[in-house]
Amino acid sequence: MTYDAETVREILGKARAEGREALTAPEGKRVCDAYSIPTPGEGLATTADEALVLAEEIGLPVVLKIVSPDILHKTEAGGVLVGVSSVEDIRSGFDTIVANAKKYNSDAVINGVQVQQMVGGGYEVIIGATTDPTFGKVVAFGLGGVLVEVLKDITFRLAPLDQAEALSMVDGIAAAEVLKGARGAEPVDADVLANVIRRVSELVSDFPEIAEFDLNPVFASASGAVAADVRIILSTGPVQERRRIAPDEILRVMTRLMNPKSVAVIGASAETGKIGNSVMKNLINGGFAGEIHPINPKADEILGKKAYPSITAVPGDVDVAVFAIPAKFVPAALEECGDKNVPAAVLIPSGFGETGNHELQERIVEIGQRRGIRMLGPNIYGYYYTPQNLCATFCTPYDVKGGVALSSQSGGIGMAILGFARSTKMGVSAIVGLGNKADVDEDDLITYFEQDDNTNVVAMHLEDLKDGRAFVEAAQRTIRKKPIIVLKAGRTAMGARAASSHTGALAGDDKVYDDILKQAGVIRAPGLNDMLEYARGVPLLPTPQGENVVIITGAGGSGVLLSDAVVTEGLSLMDIPPDLDEAFRKFIPPFGAAGNPIDITGGEPPSTYEATIRLGLEDPRIHALILGYWHTIVTPPMVFAEVTARVVAAARAKGIDKPVVASLAGDVEVERASEYLYERRIVAYPYTTEKPVAVLGAKYRWARAAGLLKLPR
Amino acid sequence: MTYDAETVREILGKARAEGREALTAPEGKRVCDAYSIPTPGEGLATTADEALVLAEEIGLPVVLKIVSPDILHKTEAGGVLVGVSSVEDIRSGFDTIVANAKKYNSDAVINGVQVQQMVGGGYEVIIGATTDPTFGKVVAFGLGGVLVEVLKDITFRLAPLDQAEALSMVDGIAAAEVLKGARGAEPVDADVLANVIRRVSELVSDFPEIAEFDLNPVFASASGAVAADVRIILSTGPVQERRRIAPDEILRVMTRLMNPKSVAVIGASAETGKIGNSVMKNLINGGFAGEIHPINPKADEILGKKAYPSITAVPGDVDVAVFAIPAKFVPAALEECGDKNVPAAVLIPSGFGETGNHELQERIVEIGQRRGIRMLGPNIYGYYYTPQNLCATFCTPYDVKGGVALSSQSGGIGMAILGFARSTKMGVSAIVGLGNKADVDEDDLITYFEQDDNTNVVAMHLEDLKDGRAFVEAAQRTIRKKPIIVLKAGRTAMGARAASSHTGALAGDDKVYDDILKQAGVIRAPGLNDMLEYARGVPLLPTPQGENVVIITGAGGSGVLLSDAVVTEGLSLMDIPPDLDEAFRKFIPPFGAAGNPIDITGGEPPSTYEATIRLGLEDPRIHALILGYWHTIVTPPMVFAEVTARVVAAARAKGIDKPVVASLAGDVEVERASEYLYERRIVAYPYTTEKPVAVLGAKYRWARAAGLLKLPR
Repeated sequence: MTYDAETVREILGKARAEGREALTAPEGKRVCDAYSIPTPGEGLATTADEALVLAEEIGLPVVLKIVSPDILHKTEAGGVLVGVSSVEDIRSGFDTIVANAKKYNSDAVINGVQVQQMVGGGYEVIIGATTDPTFGKVVAFGLGGVLVEVLKDITFRLAPLDQAEALSMVDGIAAAEVLKGARGAEPVDADVLANVIRRVSELVSDFPEIAEFDLNPVFASASGAVAADVRIILSTGPVQERRRIAPDEILRVMTRLMNPKSVAVIGASAETGKIGNSVMKNLINGGFAGEIHPINPKADEILGKKAYPSITAVPGDVDVAVFAIPAKFVPAALEECGDKNVPAAVLIPSGFGETGNHELQERIVEIGQRRGIRMLGPNIYGYYYTPQNLCATFCTPYDVKGGVALSSQSGGIGMAILGFARSTKMGVSAIVGLGNKADVDEDDLITYFEQDDNTNVVAMHLEDLKDGRAFVEAAQRTIRKKPIIVLKAGRTAMGARAASSHTGALAGDDKVYDDILKQAGVIRAPGLNDMLEYARGVPLLPTPQGENVVIITGAGGSGVLLSDAVVTEGLSLMDIPPDLDEAFRKFIPPFGAAGNPIDITGGEPPSTYEATIRLGLEDPRIHALILGYWHTIVTPPMVFAEVTARVVAAARAKGIDKPVVASLAGDVEVERASEYLYERRIVAYPYTTEKPVAVLGAKYRWARAAGLLKLPR
Repeated sequence: MTYDAETVREILGKARAEGREALTAPEGKRVCDAYSIPTPGEGLATTADEALVLAEEIGLPVVLKIVSPDILHKTEAGGVLVGVSSVEDIRSGFDTIVANAKKYNSDAVINGVQVQQMVGGGYEVIIGATTDPTFGKVVAFGLGGVLVEVLKDITFRLAPLDQAEALSMVDGIAAAEVLKGARGAEPVDADVLANVIRRVSELVSDFPEIAEFDLNPVFASASGAVAADVRIILSTGPVQERRRIAPDEILRVMTRLMNPKSVAVIGASAETGKIGNSVMKNLINGGFAGEIHPINPKADEILGKKAYPSITAVPGDVDVAVFAIPAKFVPAALEECGDKNVPAAVLIPSGFGETGNHELQERIVEIGQRRGIRMLGPNIYGYYYTPQNLCATFCTPYDVKGGVALSSQSGGIGMAILGFARSTKMGVSAIVGLGNKADVDEDDLITYFEQDDNTNVVAMHLEDLKDGRAFVEAAQRTIRKKPIIVLKAGRTAMGARAASSHTGALAGDDKVYDDILKQAGVIRAPGLNDMLEYARGVPLLPTPQGENVVIITGAGGSGVLLSDAVVTEGLSLMDIPPDLDEAFRKFIPPFGAAGNPIDITGGEPPSTYEATIRLGLEDPRIHALILGYWHTIVTPPMVFAEVTARVVAAARAKGIDKPVVASLAGDVEVERASEYLYERRIVAYPYTTEKPVAVLGAKYRWARAAGLLKLPR
């Protein structure tokens, strides 16, 4: 599809030149025509006679609307007549609305009266676009009326988008069933609707000066879609370009940040309790093998390392400068880093934007950009990168190496990550504080972790995104290889936003974040503890090959609760085929329940758990197992754990590696049994049926987004 | 309001005598008239002339509808004409629909044509009633069309109900805002709508033979409400009465069950590994001070207690017989209990309804009723009642006494309760297995715990309710005194139900349970772990006096997540008045944020936590505190915990006892600090911002339901 961009450019240029924010209806229609966005047949009449000629061309009945750059709310001005169906009514109607408009605003310039095809029938939907402060151009889709306005049933995507993504919007509202022909009605043509969404997305992407765009309503039916009303709002100021850094360049500096040969600590101190002392100790005690250079003009040596008065005095290259000095001294020290060609600065100090000192923050941003220094922070606890035994932080060293890379915008959450990780012995590759994100942010980290063989999952706490579009691009690339888990805080603090369009007014922060994080393919965690549990469990589970989940349980009660959790997490209980049902039945008592959940009943010996779990692993039609254990004398917790671990290990040895999660109901021994299983990559929890299924659900959400399910639903 | 019950009785009696399930439209209207349920003006015409006379009385336009006991789907039969507005149209219309009806079903008896006032305008709502297998008569309310049919936006209550409860239905649908006049429309008269709901609820309660009842649509506006269509479906069989036991009688037996002087163990054994051995050991080792009588025909003595061949041989009264024998021997032993006048039997054995042996279960139910024995189980682990050191179970003794009474329908969940309780040192009064609930069920337990001074909260896992109405009655009585927490499993297994009415078809299991559990005033836990955490935390928190919640946090990041949780839990962040804001600001750094959350910032000493928490406790306008702690060197975890506990204790000593919950973000020391706080009735958790707020939310839900908030929202 080629569009007539030249016409749009000309219309927008003229309006902007005239200082107008809103396009007139005829301008809006021409813009739509240029991008093949269907609107009713229409024309502009400057006299009642012209209106009559146009109406005959278009066909009766018609709608008459006043056209004036000074009248935005046409209905309020008495400037609209619908269902005009006779020659006399067109004549009198023309005169009436012109008179009404003059009464409404005697200064209004009146260009004429728009004569428009009367549309209706089918469903009223809203298609729109707005400019989000985080994500830039986003498109919106919803059902008109109560559904979108009261129930806020609307969905958003980053623009531009392709036909498949546009179709996912038509299918992505709560009331989607309506459009599919609920109550015996004819379904809408979803492809045609998706086409309109796609074209709108391309229009606003091609013309960033279009701030807001509404097609409301669009009449959608089995035979097509027509936008009955178009509203286009322009931004009057200059259109800002995003500052972009090429992925290669990001990677070059991030690699030096994470794998430095030489680290300088600006403000290093020998005095216990000082941040500059804690950072030095953690670097040394953490086992960092590279050079460590304390910078302190008042010391010759700190903790056995030769100290320098300035970073410029350090011999050889310095890869990372960790700042442990008061905020006010940061700019000068940063300039010195520039002199020394230090590529990365870690700004621990607070006292910048977060305390209202935006001026100081802007100053360091300017220095960083001018001197080519990428900066982490300010206002952070520092960062850990365990493959290098690097603990550049004032917290405590962390030494359980593993594949989980975590970041947090807040220091408090960073400390919660550290404590949880230590308590659960979670294997970590990195923990990074992002703080004020004056420079380095989530997409920089993702770009590094994407190609970092030491990292197999990324988990991020964030309160906002500086550049949502860069985040989505980095995430969409990365999740093909490894999962990204996001805890987006500030979920419920809906920003009331001034907007001149429906779409703009409906674009509450969290709904936009939620839809676009989904579009990015990340796993959104509902809370802090969920993020931590997902980070710990998701990388341990192998990727499922398909959607067939089977529950094997010793407790019927757990089976019911696990089934509830399966539905909550959007998983699919496999419909067990008769031969498989028969096979399971061989192992369980006659009063046990096959089907799914498979209830082996409570009094069974370890051999029953063993046989059914083995069958579940070895039948290729089953893709994931959820186990419900019930503590009995016949099969005590550790016996269950050992049997299960052994069967799973035997299957793995044969090349069968399916995700297995377990809920253990029993006395306190189930805690040790759960740990034992977890250590063997079986995600197990005591006293909860929800958590193991939630971790499996997170794994599935990623596998689906990454296109890894061989048998998609 | 008095109703004309006589007329209804006559109409229903006639229809049932004729073996009809459905009432005709004129019958439906008469039933409505008798209960002052507003319907359009109308009459029955047997000739076109009669139709004309009626239409002139009612006023044009009218609706014509065929009246035939054999035609239920009138529209399908071509038996409805709307908007008939002239004399000629009435004549021809009459003939047309009679002809259509005859064509549709040539055998149909045709009573005539109903001439009805044409109604419309305002909003279309549905008001209905159905007979739920668990709850009996329930009423339903929803907005007509897409909202109720696609989005299932409908709400249910137990019938009959009062005006306030009926109003809560009008306000209780997701789209309630629509009825309040969204988009500038006139709001409906909610009182009038509630009146209609209330009358429907009274009608179906007065006449249990009304199986289903639909008013669909009801046109509701600012000026009134009229039901345009009435459908009434009768049950043809006899109407069953519930078997009810008077609360006093329940209490008498439950008191003996919980506080026995003498317990017999039928099937007691000296052999380790046998259930009858475990029960004996637990009774003895648990420290039960009453008599313990092993019953075993093959032994003289078991574990040092004299054994008897039969319970009838035991000298003196026996209060409780615990069964540890195979299912097939239960009936005979139960008869012997009858001979001995044992009031309560605890049936541990499985092999009854749960394995398909319904016949055996019915047999013991019959024996129990005939012999006046209340039975717990069968298919249970037994029960604990710690005030009597009573462990009548094959599990292990439990000895941390406290105020939490728990029950579970499933043995697996019972074991999870036991393990969680032991692991968290939760103070427990009772843990009771209910299993198949052949006799004793949740309302019996609630009736006991209501008046049990050893119990201050009840937590129940259930998969179904035998008698939902008895449960609601017991719960509504009890929650005035103490909270009831319910984990309803099988949440997502919606029963597809055959129904002849809209209301019946929409009454999916979980929506009915959810609404009616709310009506009962119980706290519904979303999952197993939530139920356990609520049970542990809710009784420790004092009851809040009002809705003003304040967050005090050392970590801005925790503040944001805690605010999210506050909204999720339906709590209200207090709008801090200027003088209080000023008072908080005195204690926090200038760059800290007052407002709410109050961000004291991360680097603060213990004195800042102390001063702000004290102010939060002492200002009477604040009703609950949520604390967010951030681990720093300046205020380490245990220092925070001690300071907080001290300030809270000092306030309590002055008679100020407000709920205080805390989220601790930090390294592993926060685990011990959280425990320290929890032991001092400050509900604190590490590594989660969600859980502490969820427990506070549960406490608030109860306080609101119990009418204990002095300052309701």
